[in-house]
Amino acid sequence: MNKEQMNNKSWITIPENSDFPLENIPFGVIQPKGYKPQIATRIGDTAVSLSALCKAGFFDDLQMEDLSAFYEPVLNGLIALGKEKTKAIRRRLIDLFSQDTIALQNNKEAKAVALFPVNEVKMMLPVAIGDYTDFYSSIEHATNVGKMFRDPDHALLPNWRHIPVGYHGRSSSIVVSETSIHRPKGQTKSDEEKMPRFGPTKQLDFELEMGFITGKNSTLGDSIPVDRAEEFIFGMVLFNDLSARDIQKWEYVPLGPFLSKNFGSVMSPWIVTMEALEPFRVEGPVQEPEVLPYLRSKGKKNFDIHLEVALQPKNSVETLVSHSNFKYMYWNMSQQLAHQTVNGCNIRVGDLYASGTISGKSPDSYGSMLELTWRGTKPLKLADGSERKFVEDNDTLIMRGYCRKETLRIGFGECTTKIVPAK
Amino acid sequence: MNKEQMNNKSWITIPENSDFPLENIPFGVIQPKGYKPQIATRIGDTAVSLSALCKAGFFDDLQMEDLSAFYEPVLNGLIALGKEKTKAIRRRLIDLFSQDTIALQNNKEAKAVALFPVNEVKMMLPVAIGDYTDFYSSIEHATNVGKMFRDPDHALLPNWRHIPVGYHGRSSSIVVSETSIHRPKGQTKSDEEKMPRFGPTKQLDFELEMGFITGKNSTLGDSIPVDRAEEFIFGMVLFNDLSARDIQKWEYVPLGPFLSKNFGSVMSPWIVTMEALEPFRVEGPVQEPEVLPYLRSKGKKNFDIHLEVALQPKNSVETLVSHSNFKYMYWNMSQQLAHQTVNGCNIRVGDLYASGTISGKSPDSYGSMLELTWRGTKPLKLADGSERKFVEDNDTLIMRGYCRKETLRIGFGECTTKIVPAK
Repeated sequence: MNKEQMNNKSWITIPENSDFPLENIPFGVIQPKGYKPQIATRIGDTAVSLSALCKAGFFDDLQMEDLSAFYEPVLNGLIALGKEKTKAIRRRLIDLFSQDTIALQNNKEAKAVALFPVNEVKMMLPVAIGDYTDFYSSIEHATNVGKMFRDPDHALLPNWRHIPVGYHGRSSSIVVSETSIHRPKGQTKSDEEKMPRFGPTKQLDFELEMGFITGKNSTLGDSIPVDRAEEFIFGMVLFNDLSARDIQKWEYVPLGPFLSKNFGSVMSPWIVTMEALEPFRVEGPVQEPEVLPYLRSKGKKNFDIHLEVALQPKNSVETLVSHSNFKYMYWNMSQQLAHQTVNGCNIRVGDLYASGTISGKSPDSYGSMLELTWRGTKPLKLADGSERKFVEDNDTLIMRGYCRKETLRIGFGECTTKIVPAK
Repeated sequence: MNKEQMNNKSWITIPENSDFPLENIPFGVIQPKGYKPQIATRIGDTAVSLSALCKAGFFDDLQMEDLSAFYEPVLNGLIALGKEKTKAIRRRLIDLFSQDTIALQNNKEAKAVALFPVNEVKMMLPVAIGDYTDFYSSIEHATNVGKMFRDPDHALLPNWRHIPVGYHGRSSSIVVSETSIHRPKGQTKSDEEKMPRFGPTKQLDFELEMGFITGKNSTLGDSIPVDRAEEFIFGMVLFNDLSARDIQKWEYVPLGPFLSKNFGSVMSPWIVTMEALEPFRVEGPVQEPEVLPYLRSKGKKNFDIHLEVALQPKNSVETLVSHSNFKYMYWNMSQQLAHQTVNGCNIRVGDLYASGTISGKSPDSYGSMLELTWRGTKPLKLADGSERKFVEDNDTLIMRGYCRKETLRIGFGECTTKIVPAK
């Protein structure tokens, strides 16, 4: 069966243009009404409980000694089984849901406990996140920020082209799509004010990012070579790194962003595996000057993933405010992971590594309100006639991402969050 | 029984000047030879397995519905029981080990599985650390660093007296005392060099810090008021935030320290509870200008804890290189926690909040080699005649901390680590 045909080859109805054809088979955690959270995949608009399929024996012959990972409320155990096992699980699922396979298709009992319409299950945070690193790997974003906040003539700092700059973020406040976030309060001080003031941020922003989840532990003291980094990458998600620009400006010197970033970050619920993304590899931008040897990666290490952000005010329609693409990243994921561990820092299954804001060259491809409105100086006009300098209360932010090649489309679904007033 | 008498009142021998009298009762995790890790306390030089005591029924009448926390390999479950329960456990332990209590004293079987000489058990990391924040709360340290790296005339940045400045650090690489750490490799660039170079750090440093462990969850969106912050603080440890100064200098702009700090941080194995530290409360320094209302704390929120750092070269004697005190902190722990959560950031049981380097006013009280040798310009003379600008391979760093009031001494034991050559 070739890939073009597969979409029509499942006995599950897959809507046209779905992000979740039989070739995707992402991993997530669902909570159907009246059930405990259980690990799952998604095909079309159907959520499939892997716990239920496991209980019904559909993974019995995969030569896995221990099936307990199928019954955990997060994916960490499953991911930790390793790529060989998770690939075998994906293959089994593709087979089970193929048109010609009747094992599950004709098993009413198993289908009743394993299949749910996606809009009838609650999506849960799919992994227990150990450490979370946020990189700063888009040259367009770093340049835009440098122009606005530092020196327009030397927008990129001297280290930027040598180091995939990053910092540690907060794991506890990472939530799954569809969680509302309260507008954060904090200290701000304008250049004109003598003393700082306290109150809700007036410059709430989104950051369009993607993140990868690690699938393998490393040992403290060891470095992961750049050409082996992909062994440690399990899959990817959309990520909204909400930011309060006025709080950030006052707090970030000299130790970096803190409360301006840790009040809530939002990730999409389905982790799309690197196997599903394989057809969408592309070359990255040329890196000049040449990077140090430990960062030199070979081959196609970027991925062509269309990204967009929509903003929807309360009781109104959505406006697409940004179109971007993950392929614009200057530093790729292998380089990020090689850098993260070059000093011996250890990684763990379930860590999250986010890209930093993904901006393109054209102004409509900028990945944050800060850049789109150029620090509030060029307000965005929305479809309903209103304007935005930054995000307002009761605005919903919707991020989407998908890859397309000929008739194959693999997507991430949505990463949405509503901003609710400060508590 | 009054406190002065208690030291002599245990049927366990407690050496004079021990950090662990009957009034301390810290919590840790031990692994005796041939056993699994188990939660424990320490009295004098005896480690006491709480798992074994629980199994023998010594906590049966504490009205705890669920005793499973006693059998976990980390303290998170026990700490999450809440202060009322952990206080009751401490009271029971003080009673069990008092001279006049025979229940355990006369129970040979229980003693055989519960009591171990501390030098015959392996100490484990006591908690599974969720998030780790490192503050920067010593005014002397921040001033010294500002003088060296920025403007000697305006050493403190404008936000410093308004914000307990902090940043998120790495949890995965926090290890327990007596773990060796490899000298990290990384990028550095001196002002004279045109391009960065790669190799082992030449400026490896310690940072003398203390950390507190949180004992209660908060909810995303909620803030912890400064006058309720202590409810969320379980206990304290010594903490060595190892740093690579040359890597830090090149990487830290604009998002803060990253690889210069996350290659290994070391904590002492016994968490000393806030109850044990209660007698040692002192006033903190006057804060000028007055801080914003959400940071205004009342009463004695600092603690008088003597701190010292010794450096011991391989096959040589140790030299005391710093004497400091936790009471010097400008920002107290309640203020740190109120600030951490003022934007709604949630905390979890087992988070670690470190103080930042604790320096005093006099040069021999500085808490890092960077300050003690003034960036390598004034090398330290060691007892064996050798000199140090920074930490060298095979040097062992030993931090100690204790409180003393009349005859009562409560201490933390040691936080030690040996620096081994780069891999």
